[in-house]
Amino acid sequence: MLDETANGVFTIAVTPFLPDGAIDWDSVDRMVDFYIAQGATGLTVLGMMGEAGKLTAEESVALVKRVTARSSVPIVVGVSAPGFAAMKALSDAAMDLGAAGVMVAPPGSLKTDAQIVAYYHNTAEALGSAPFVLQDFPLVTNVTIPTSAILQIVADCPTCVMLKHEDWPGLEKISALRAASDAGARRISILCGNGGLYLLEEMLRGADGAMTGFAYPEMMAQVVETCRSGDVTRARDIFDAYLPMVRYEAQPGLGLAIRKFTLAQRGVIAHPALRKPGAGLSDAAKGEVLALAERQQQALQKLAL
Amino acid sequence: MLDETANGVFTIAVTPFLPDGAIDWDSVDRMVDFYIAQGATGLTVLGMMGEAGKLTAEESVALVKRVTARSSVPIVVGVSAPGFAAMKALSDAAMDLGAAGVMVAPPGSLKTDAQIVAYYHNTAEALGSAPFVLQDFPLVTNVTIPTSAILQIVADCPTCVMLKHEDWPGLEKISALRAASDAGARRISILCGNGGLYLLEEMLRGADGAMTGFAYPEMMAQVVETCRSGDVTRARDIFDAYLPMVRYEAQPGLGLAIRKFTLAQRGVIAHPALRKPGAGLSDAAKGEVLALAERQQQALQKLAL
Amino acid sequence: MLDETANGVFTIAVTPFLPDGAIDWDSVDRMVDFYIAQGATGLTVLGMMGEAGKLTAEESVALVKRVTARSSVPIVVGVSAPGFAAMKALSDAAMDLGAAGVMVAPPGSLKTDAQIVAYYHNTAEALGSAPFVLQDFPLVTNVTIPTSAILQIVADCPTCVMLKHEDWPGLEKISALRAASDAGARRISILCGNGGLYLLEEMLRGADGAMTGFAYPEMMAQVVETCRSGDVTRARDIFDAYLPMVRYEAQPGLGLAIRKFTLAQRGVIAHPALRKPGAGLSDAAKGEVLALAERQQQALQKLAL
Amino acid sequence: MLDETANGVFTIAVTPFLPDGAIDWDSVDRMVDFYIAQGATGLTVLGMMGEAGKLTAEESVALVKRVTARSSVPIVVGVSAPGFAAMKALSDAAMDLGAAGVMVAPPGSLKTDAQIVAYYHNTAEALGSAPFVLQDFPLVTNVTIPTSAILQIVADCPTCVMLKHEDWPGLEKISALRAASDAGARRISILCGNGGLYLLEEMLRGADGAMTGFAYPEMMAQVVETCRSGDVTRARDIFDAYLPMVRYEAQPGLGLAIRKFTLAQRGVIAHPALRKPGAGLSDAAKGEVLALAERQQQALQKLAL
Repeated sequence: MLDETANGVFTIAVTPFLPDGAIDWDSVDRMVDFYIAQGATGLTVLGMMGEAGKLTAEESVALVKRVTARSSVPIVVGVSAPGFAAMKALSDAAMDLGAAGVMVAPPGSLKTDAQIVAYYHNTAEALGSAPFVLQDFPLVTNVTIPTSAILQIVADCPTCVMLKHEDWPGLEKISALRAASDAGARRISILCGNGGLYLLEEMLRGADGAMTGFAYPEMMAQVVETCRSGDVTRARDIFDAYLPMVRYEAQPGLGLAIRKFTLAQRGVIAHPALRKPGAGLSDAAKGEVLALAERQQQALQKLAL
Repeated sequence: MLDETANGVFTIAVTPFLPDGAIDWDSVDRMVDFYIAQGATGLTVLGMMGEAGKLTAEESVALVKRVTARSSVPIVVGVSAPGFAAMKALSDAAMDLGAAGVMVAPPGSLKTDAQIVAYYHNTAEALGSAPFVLQDFPLVTNVTIPTSAILQIVADCPTCVMLKHEDWPGLEKISALRAASDAGARRISILCGNGGLYLLEEMLRGADGAMTGFAYPEMMAQVVETCRSGDVTRARDIFDAYLPMVRYEAQPGLGLAIRKFTLAQRGVIAHPALRKPGAGLSDAAKGEVLALAERQQQALQKLAL
Repeated sequence: MLDETANGVFTIAVTPFLPDGAIDWDSVDRMVDFYIAQGATGLTVLGMMGEAGKLTAEESVALVKRVTARSSVPIVVGVSAPGFAAMKALSDAAMDLGAAGVMVAPPGSLKTDAQIVAYYHNTAEALGSAPFVLQDFPLVTNVTIPTSAILQIVADCPTCVMLKHEDWPGLEKISALRAASDAGARRISILCGNGGLYLLEEMLRGADGAMTGFAYPEMMAQVVETCRSGDVTRARDIFDAYLPMVRYEAQPGLGLAIRKFTLAQRGVIAHPALRKPGAGLSDAAKGEVLALAERQQQALQKLAL
Repeated sequence: MLDETANGVFTIAVTPFLPDGAIDWDSVDRMVDFYIAQGATGLTVLGMMGEAGKLTAEESVALVKRVTARSSVPIVVGVSAPGFAAMKALSDAAMDLGAAGVMVAPPGSLKTDAQIVAYYHNTAEALGSAPFVLQDFPLVTNVTIPTSAILQIVADCPTCVMLKHEDWPGLEKISALRAASDAGARRISILCGNGGLYLLEEMLRGADGAMTGFAYPEMMAQVVETCRSGDVTRARDIFDAYLPMVRYEAQPGLGLAIRKFTLAQRGVIAHPALRKPGAGLSDAAKGEVLALAERQQQALQKLAL
């Protein structure tokens, strides 16, 4: 079961599709193995980058079943839904299948601090004993969650064990949360998103790792580990070598197509296909990715990585 | 099957719940009978006012099954979903169960005219032969659909047979669409929403009726029929008698609670309960509704209604 | 100077233009006289409905000068601005010219309760001794201000003396604010907006009057006065007679054109012109307004008004 | 006068303030000299990063006067305003003072393609003969401008001579605009924003340079020049050396404080002060900037820069 001590890299998994739009189950298995081999300490499925909204309820459960059966590391399942009934249905199914916890982003209708806190009270009640991750991603959800609201939720809901941190800018929020737990608040796990674009500084501010889907998860594993070992200069060397690609992947809306293209290039998934609506990359974009990959390879060789 | 000639009043049905949150099936049946008895020429289920987002996929199908089995008038089923797979799954199930058509609102991620048109192309493809209603409700969807985009969709998608019109302001849009069909564009049915707040003017601009959930559907049936008969003064008399309540129900977010309270007062549904998140009415609000209902009753007596 | 005891009707004044877009100063004078003759206890200029954003800084000051010189009732000046320097410049000029107070709406960039409160702290500091009105209009500003934040601002900023209330729905907010002041919080004036659409219920919840621009300000004066005298049935009769027009004017974006058309019809302003961007009414819309005005006249005759 | 051939780097200038909030005129002069010495081929003042909204109308004109008097390169003046009267007033004043052109971002109220095009028609009319830059920055303006609308504006408005490109993702838009001009559309200048985060790819897609405010404008000048000379590998080396800092500055809302901190560190402006609302950097953030600057310095030495 997921708890407050979770750390390392929880890779946000894509959902591989065949060219006809069906789920590509062989690629699912290969992807799980790949992420773990690259250092993932956990996996998150059915997140936004997993095209969760494009699956039917049946497909969602089937994916959780396949991934939990294959994985040797804990699985977090995105269960955000317009209503609590659907959220609870998927969460219950996922936990029954062996998931370690679930993740919930706030709906865009929430406007005030009190509404946000009340929403997570209802969430915790709906989910029962399932540990959950609070996803804080204002760029996409349009809901800004102040630190004080997060702390209130943590105080009120014992099953809230992790923050998926991707406020932007969000470094001060990490510092504020850590100052609060140093002062006595319950300390939850903070894993950071935003494609890893600020991972270096996030670790130095007190994050426990990353939860994001950069197509080279080994970067995240190495940066997290090197930071934790105290060798910040080495961590910066590694981070900087991947940064041009991290940045390129950080294009909103386009990031998933870039990520799937790279995973297909690396042989992890068979096809870079997205379900509609969701286009692939232009030839120009593919060329840009390949050029970045080549330079990245050169930079890694200099680092003996 | 729903087609371009649909007219009259398609009542947006609520989803009745028991106090514990389960669907109240007896009230569902009573509600269907009531709406038809009050003059509904069709019913729409699983719309926004039907708390569609708060049901599980199974509950949604069960509700469609119950309503189609009970109803003697055509049923439209809201199938808006974050992705086409879930949309198609519910649409296919609904049409198999005897629904007359489905309704689709645009997701908030659509930003440009071309994106909107492309979205409905994909929708039409996903839905196959099912006739569909384009729901145009910018206040809630945050997507403004210009008249030119609607006309493009109508031109490109033969299965788009109706506009649920609730742009606000939206009267000029009705006139523009009717001018376009007078000039040769395919004429689709226009049924208007916004709780009926502009029904009188909408009819005079060329609408075919209403598709909204005002808790006194007889008002809408009478106004539509009286307008069509040409007695505009009588239609205004009827409309004005109900207007204070129409206006009160038009409070966003609160409207559904008001509607369910009234339906419970009228004996149509057993409980005014909403699923979370969604609160009931304060005592002050209940008093306001009751005061309005009493004055409404007096006004109707003067009209011999 | 504006203070917490303000009540009655502060009419939101339009800014009359000549057909070439210049300010129509003669109409400004006539309009001031008209509003006062119809029962206004105050006037608000440079509000959103005053096309404040379309004036230059010089024109804004000139308008304040003209109106304060002409008026026998207190003048509130809208001074909302992207920054505090421009806000302070206009506020200082307005107060020097004899304005009674100023009004400030929050910028759309505010996301959390704490940001809203901090913004009004900065506002109060920038405005110095000028009494100010907090404008709470989420439909347009996209900022939802919870009751707790309003109470915090009232507690912290002695110069905040009035709430322009146009949250929607907003009746519970009035009740909550009045409960708070009954329990010891400073009681500020609450004048309500939204074109008067809920004026009846707002008065019964504890509002002190209206601050909005319905083109028949006599309705608001009469409803406020009749409510305060305790004759609620008479107040409802008056309110209902005007309601079809209130509702028609409530169309967002279009409301100002309707209002200016009516004011021109009534001989108050010489031209219904709006500055760009801002269109006039179609012939169909003009016909709708005239039909409503005729029926309104008949209804008022029955009430001997 | 600004025209379609503009290229290179138009630095978005900050507005330097003294600790008490007054404009720091000495720093203004020093900043102008610095930007030009670092390779700026133009300057843009009163942009969003220039805290334009926080200045009074008088201060805005005074700043334009100071900068145009000091600068040997063309000056573009941001004149975005809620209305055309204020826009025209500032534009006329700026052009009289010797500005080369003005820049206009769309207001957030624009929803459809036709509204956007109409807005720029009105803009061009209001500005008269002043050449203008269309600012395309959806992340901040909330207005998504499709390529087709840009091309329509370019076709209709001869005074639209430049696109400040900061859509995100926006690379395909550059390619599409260049394909259109290759096919006969008028070719306008495209200078890119987003802090330079995609400058390398933007140049390769056909941009003419950068218009953004990264605190090391020499990077942008060198990358643009090196790209134009055809030495893409060298351009990547330079770009990558600065990328960790570019990325750090790219934090929305915080970017300006980082930029001013760096400019103060570099001795360009005397104080890093922002006007309210707008905070400075925490000690932790200052430490992060300094650490990045030190590594950047090392990386540049390796490149003999």
